[in-house]
Amino acid sequence: MKSYKEMSKEELQEIKESLEKEYARAAGMGLNLNMSRGKPSASQLDLTMDMLNTVNSSSDINDAEGNDSRNYGVMDGITEAKELMADIMGVNSENIIIFGNASLNIMYDMVSRSMILGVMDNTPWCRLDKVKFLCPVPGYDRHFAITELFGIEMIPIPMTENGPDMDMVEKYVNTDETVKGIWCVPRFSNPQGTVYSDDTVRRFAALKPAAKDFRIYWDNAYAVHALYDDAPELLEIFEECKKNGNEDMVYEFCSTSKISFAGAGISAVAASKSNLDAIKEVMTIQTIGHDKVNQLRHVRFFKNMDGIREHMKKHADIMRPKFEAVIDTFEKNLGGLEIGSWINPKGGYFISFESMPGCATGIVQKCKEAGVVLTNAGATYPYGKDPQDSNIRIAPSFPTEEEMQQAAELFVLCVKLVSAEKLLENF
Amino acid sequence: MKSYKEMSKEELQEIKESLEKEYARAAGMGLNLNMSRGKPSASQLDLTMDMLNTVNSSSDINDAEGNDSRNYGVMDGITEAKELMADIMGVNSENIIIFGNASLNIMYDMVSRSMILGVMDNTPWCRLDKVKFLCPVPGYDRHFAITELFGIEMIPIPMTENGPDMDMVEKYVNTDETVKGIWCVPRFSNPQGTVYSDDTVRRFAALKPAAKDFRIYWDNAYAVHALYDDAPELLEIFEECKKNGNEDMVYEFCSTSKISFAGAGISAVAASKSNLDAIKEVMTIQTIGHDKVNQLRHVRFFKNMDGIREHMKKHADIMRPKFEAVIDTFEKNLGGLEIGSWINPKGGYFISFESMPGCATGIVQKCKEAGVVLTNAGATYPYGKDPQDSNIRIAPSFPTEEEMQQAAELFVLCVKLVSAEKLLENF
Repeated sequence: MKSYKEMSKEELQEIKESLEKEYARAAGMGLNLNMSRGKPSASQLDLTMDMLNTVNSSSDINDAEGNDSRNYGVMDGITEAKELMADIMGVNSENIIIFGNASLNIMYDMVSRSMILGVMDNTPWCRLDKVKFLCPVPGYDRHFAITELFGIEMIPIPMTENGPDMDMVEKYVNTDETVKGIWCVPRFSNPQGTVYSDDTVRRFAALKPAAKDFRIYWDNAYAVHALYDDAPELLEIFEECKKNGNEDMVYEFCSTSKISFAGAGISAVAASKSNLDAIKEVMTIQTIGHDKVNQLRHVRFFKNMDGIREHMKKHADIMRPKFEAVIDTFEKNLGGLEIGSWINPKGGYFISFESMPGCATGIVQKCKEAGVVLTNAGATYPYGKDPQDSNIRIAPSFPTEEEMQQAAELFVLCVKLVSAEKLLENF
Repeated sequence: MKSYKEMSKEELQEIKESLEKEYARAAGMGLNLNMSRGKPSASQLDLTMDMLNTVNSSSDINDAEGNDSRNYGVMDGITEAKELMADIMGVNSENIIIFGNASLNIMYDMVSRSMILGVMDNTPWCRLDKVKFLCPVPGYDRHFAITELFGIEMIPIPMTENGPDMDMVEKYVNTDETVKGIWCVPRFSNPQGTVYSDDTVRRFAALKPAAKDFRIYWDNAYAVHALYDDAPELLEIFEECKKNGNEDMVYEFCSTSKISFAGAGISAVAASKSNLDAIKEVMTIQTIGHDKVNQLRHVRFFKNMDGIREHMKKHADIMRPKFEAVIDTFEKNLGGLEIGSWINPKGGYFISFESMPGCATGIVQKCKEAGVVLTNAGATYPYGKDPQDSNIRIAPSFPTEEEMQQAAELFVLCVKLVSAEKLLENF
């Protein structure tokens, strides 16, 4: 196909008119699809229905240590749930606290606690003039929302195919003591699906932070969410930290939201003993502990890491065709046009699309008007502001494969139309 | 029985020696009982086991509005769970947000949010020189722990048989704008089992706070936890607030921790629309929402308020004999001795005992040495400091009736022994 960029004004004009007609037809189809959030489909949730039978009225209700899971106590989670979550993250179960159904809530609590009470014995952030977080971009809007809420200044760090630009990360972290954290999704990053390279992980582990209370927020949300068997593995970061005497530098987060039930899973934090002690000191005051019956359900259903792996293959089998439908549609319809690029991820929940600069908002708007809701343009950047207005996050999980196909076709149509308009503007 | 206070030194000495022998025998019995926390017994938890069958692999998994309870979404709770929790509190379901398994966590979040972000548009408390909370005493140690953690100054307010001393409450709240809150357990207060009188509730509702961001933390933990049919009812506070244009002044908390499972229930906050909007604004950033499958389980098991009432009668049938064993033992062994008083509550989870001044720590210590763990003396006061060293909280729910009998006998023995020692000291 001929690149739009090589076209004459007349050619573009002609194409634009034809696309407008096509768009009018598509808009009349009454589509009503939502690809805005990384939400599992009903068929994925069905995979876990038998978990609901693992604890019933005639079950042994005690955990492995003989504690009644229905009662108060065992604040940091039952031992066997710690083991399961530790295995998912590849860490030691002694370094785990189990939380409720949303790992987002753990991260919020971490930042909130650091604001009012401080990290370990350091000054609470609310008493400092300036607190900064590094934000690899494009990234996860809900991360950015937490730091924005608390007035923490966010500094965008460009993503490379190996993870965040580590030269920039090192420069900021090692020299600026107002930099207190960095948001990372190290395996199948949100939205690009990038897996941080071994070198990137090693450079993270070897940081020499200017601030004693600097922490890496390692959100391993997609630890076991490969779409293909040959998806790259992530180097385990705590082992690398140990080599540098940096065990206190990382909080790792994980949940079963996209393993069991998005709204009724369990979550966990992994951290050094010193960090866990500091967390527990406040947690003792904050809660009596999280739902242990649900922890028991998870352990009895998944059993161990083999169970998790087998289960995740079933998820992948459902997700893969949807991802491929999108990628195929992009290749067939946009290949060679030079009006957009995309990443074909090996796992995770998203496809990241880069339009020509200044087109993302228009594309998302056009899709919406024709019945396909995407994540807001800009959402993948701090403060919702994508300086290039080019990144669009596509979440293919929730619609059916057929719906996904329709949505992808509408999407490429909108990309073409908005790009043609933009190029004509600049002629 | 002759009052210890009327005894001669010789009589007391003789009694003390006999009590010491009795104590030595008791200490040798190898008791190992815990009455420190208001923890339901296994037989109470068994009452709810069938709830685990209400949502299984073949269940309809949608809520009443057709939302998939397994997935993300419905942040503030499913409609039917709001209705159930609203009925328990006697409020409108529009004024409810459902949370996770611990209402303590809601209260912590409320205070934490007020500290960093402020209440509605008011200055965050962390930026004020002084923030105070009123603390009816004796009261609940976990409430006091939250305010202590955040450096909020706690002012003890004596409890009367009708609730907190309202003259003092009015004086503080209506004149001092650094007073931002008061902790209340209005029905079957912890530990005295006091039900706030209608007049007390009306005076609360009619407060004219000096601080715009003053809130009543109305922890209705024992809303439906009567031990006897003739237990006093609590006047519903929001209706009274409305009469005074004070709807924004109350946060009410409630959970099923002592209705269904202590570690796996659901909880809720009731508040005005303006308060709920402010909470939701932050909640959107803090979490995706709480476990809706568990909400569904609760609604399907209890169905409605009739279901709750019937269920709570079964709890009362298990609890009542334990409470009566304690009270009977007190009456038989301490009646007329003038060395302690106690309240016979109509509901709740505790029996509050007042020893002679300066004896509570010694009694708790002696009980512990003989194998019966009570809540620490002082725990029912802010900063763990009971100025009279006289209040002891007894939690009869967890042990069996027989164990409770043994524990009560040891307790009265320790009361007598420590009191005799104290009187002898002062001769």
